[in-house]
Amino acid sequence: MSLRVATAGLDLMADALREQSVTVDAVDWAPPADGDAEQVRLLVAAYGDERIEAGNRAAIERLQAARPMLVGAGAAGAMIPGLEGRVVLHAGPPVEWERMCVPQRLAASAACVLEGWAANLDNAAGMLARREVELAPAHDYGAAGAMTGIISPSMACWEARDDETGRTAWSPMTDGPGDAFWLGVASDAAIRRQRLMAEEIAPAFAAALAVRGPIDVFGLCAQAIAMGDDCHMRHQAATMLLLREALPAMAEHAPLRVAPLARMLAQNGHFALTVTIAAARAALSGIQGIEGSSLVVFISRNGTDAAVQLAGLPGRWFTAPAPLVGDPLYRPGFGEADAAPDIGDSALVECCGLGAAASAASPGVAEFLGGGIADAIARTREMGDICVARSERLRIPTLDGEGTPLGVDARACVDLGATPLINTGILHRTAGGQIGAGVARTPLEPIRAGLAALVGELRSTG
Amino acid sequence: MSLRVATAGLDLMADALREQSVTVDAVDWAPPADGDAEQVRLLVAAYGDERIEAGNRAAIERLQAARPMLVGAGAAGAMIPGLEGRVVLHAGPPVEWERMCVPQRLAASAACVLEGWAANLDNAAGMLARREVELAPAHDYGAAGAMTGIISPSMACWEARDDETGRTAWSPMTDGPGDAFWLGVASDAAIRRQRLMAEEIAPAFAAALAVRGPIDVFGLCAQAIAMGDDCHMRHQAATMLLLREALPAMAEHAPLRVAPLARMLAQNGHFALTVTIAAARAALSGIQGIEGSSLVVFISRNGTDAAVQLAGLPGRWFTAPAPLVGDPLYRPGFGEADAAPDIGDSALVECCGLGAAASAASPGVAEFLGGGIADAIARTREMGDICVARSERLRIPTLDGEGTPLGVDARACVDLGATPLINTGILHRTAGGQIGAGVARTPLEPIRAGLAALVGELRSTG
Repeated sequence: MSLRVATAGLDLMADALREQSVTVDAVDWAPPADGDAEQVRLLVAAYGDERIEAGNRAAIERLQAARPMLVGAGAAGAMIPGLEGRVVLHAGPPVEWERMCVPQRLAASAACVLEGWAANLDNAAGMLARREVELAPAHDYGAAGAMTGIISPSMACWEARDDETGRTAWSPMTDGPGDAFWLGVASDAAIRRQRLMAEEIAPAFAAALAVRGPIDVFGLCAQAIAMGDDCHMRHQAATMLLLREALPAMAEHAPLRVAPLARMLAQNGHFALTVTIAAARAALSGIQGIEGSSLVVFISRNGTDAAVQLAGLPGRWFTAPAPLVGDPLYRPGFGEADAAPDIGDSALVECCGLGAAASAASPGVAEFLGGGIADAIARTREMGDICVARSERLRIPTLDGEGTPLGVDARACVDLGATPLINTGILHRTAGGQIGAGVARTPLEPIRAGLAALVGELRSTG
Repeated sequence: MSLRVATAGLDLMADALREQSVTVDAVDWAPPADGDAEQVRLLVAAYGDERIEAGNRAAIERLQAARPMLVGAGAAGAMIPGLEGRVVLHAGPPVEWERMCVPQRLAASAACVLEGWAANLDNAAGMLARREVELAPAHDYGAAGAMTGIISPSMACWEARDDETGRTAWSPMTDGPGDAFWLGVASDAAIRRQRLMAEEIAPAFAAALAVRGPIDVFGLCAQAIAMGDDCHMRHQAATMLLLREALPAMAEHAPLRVAPLARMLAQNGHFALTVTIAAARAALSGIQGIEGSSLVVFISRNGTDAAVQLAGLPGRWFTAPAPLVGDPLYRPGFGEADAAPDIGDSALVECCGLGAAASAASPGVAEFLGGGIADAIARTREMGDICVARSERLRIPTLDGEGTPLGVDARACVDLGATPLINTGILHRTAGGQIGAGVARTPLEPIRAGLAALVGELRSTG
């Protein structure tokens, strides 16, 4: 009979045994936090505090129960409480004009032109630099946007509300490829497209929602994941499912708005992305403020800084420099020297069981990134390592219905030195516009800082 | 060092070695046609004839190049040459009224009422029994239909044309779940639905196609397979892709027809099925009459008989009794005693790289059938065993882009004793209506008889 050995830790022993034809099961084990003493103390405190366990249990229960519904479409200024006057919202943690990355500056300037506050982009940039137009994170207003995430009052937005908690959130309508604010393009065509969204597309959906009632967004996402979307980098199925849900009422009550919508959708397979973002933010805001929870509730980048918030420390950003997007695939003629660092609020979907967590459901995204189904499954498994649960609602058909990893635990991130992956696009550093896509990795430092702050706060109150 | 042994044939040797802890690679081998002498002679003749090899090469080349386009929608009588007077077409090989299964009788009778030939179902049945209305296989008119496959002149049909060969084919519009002719339901609601299809839905698509031009159906199928459709039992994605293609022109040029279409599609995830059938028939008719080809070109069932045609023997049906559908899943309250035998022309899609051949792409179908992704992959592999090529266009994302099995070779079927699987529905034997779904297996006997006839014909001409 053959000898069979299990090893843990370094590969030396396993390799030596294998050379002697012994069957080896090597356990993938490493010391916590690479054995760093300070971090091990942090982990001992964090894993030893029952309030963190209880907080995370409560948070997961709420995330599983979340039922964010698409309830409205219309002008941001008419929907988002407090968004009035000359204010432009942006993705990511707070960033002053001088530190703002170029794509975000361009979109913010174009928004000023759209609003009629400035005659042209130069004037707009001057006004923004002089603080005549205020800049604020979308998150400060309960909103979140993809990529540049620019929102000004007349822009078309989605409104989602979680039926479970009543929390509401907003996200700007995705204005498609090419000439688009979300991609940092400030062309006349991009401004015209925003007008079309506000004047035709948002009213078409508003009419449909008024007649048919709210649309269950995670229900759409669950179907879309069964149809090859990851619901971050790919929204092909979700976009068509959204259309199918809205079309009967829309065709009856706003028949002449169907043609512009159909023309736009024929070019815009990402259209449902910000429906998902609004819904995910509504769901996630339900766990903000749950005492002790070490779950990462938001991951947010502005092309300058990357930041996270933990559920147990609502409203506190922990930041680090935004990294470049990893595993990049660039359009012909572009490369790393052209790439703006990671940007967008959209990574919050990765805290909600979507995006990289759902990679295994989306061979299409894997292929787009130059890999195969095994790479896709590996990304879902990697997210699984740092998540405390599996979604009961979002199930991966290629894994026989296994739920997507849900609930990113800051403790697991520090323990394993692993952080959430983010399926995302890449913008041009100086010109704006999308030049590629890849998988960004959330920096560990803000997650560690957040966990340390959480433990510190619990100690002071405990 | 361990002993490692390869075995072939019976499992006895392999099992005995495994009991002695020897590593065994058992080759899955069985004698051709189970060693039946007559069939072995048939196979020797069939594999030895260069004209069969050459015919199959030519056929596969043409199937790979096929580009069937959706070119029209309208009344069957206005589109299908020769369909005039009191004629009702049906799925499957020829069958007289007395032998016709009940679901098909019901749908044929309802068609007579729809056409105004009969005042009610009883009158219609009498007319059909007295041959006052002619029954003919849809295939005789270049058409093919799902399940009962009933077509009468005023029913809405699709027209597809293969750009490669110019061959044209037709299939009736899928009238959805529940009250539907294709499912053998002859209710007033089913008749009303046919009128809606003819008066609203077909004209809407006709208007869209006239403006935007033909739609590349296998292009849609390729995308749909990447989105979890098998393009036989599941057409969720294909249906939405079809809508997305047609909607811009339709909304502009027939805006008031969008609402009825949208309402219908909200209930009918199978709608694109017969678009696929029309396209597949147009593609497959391009290999009809290729000398010597032993590829199965049509598999066709009418609930009484199951039949096949080989490409090298155009127009000749080889038949056997239609089997019950295997691996059945019944709706609550129904069982095998209620099940009509296998029915429909739709199995021709399995000869075209779709349906069971694409099973691995559709975990949704696998789950619906009570299995997992491994079962789905096994079905694609089983189809691969009897197919001579892999589709260059229809690729399976879950298998890293491997093409679906294409070109069912009658020789391989006889050799292995294996036949095409068919992902299909199950109708009620005496009442009509869908009561379940499963995987039918084409009977081997007609394939063997077809191959023997082909070899005989080649011998007589050779």
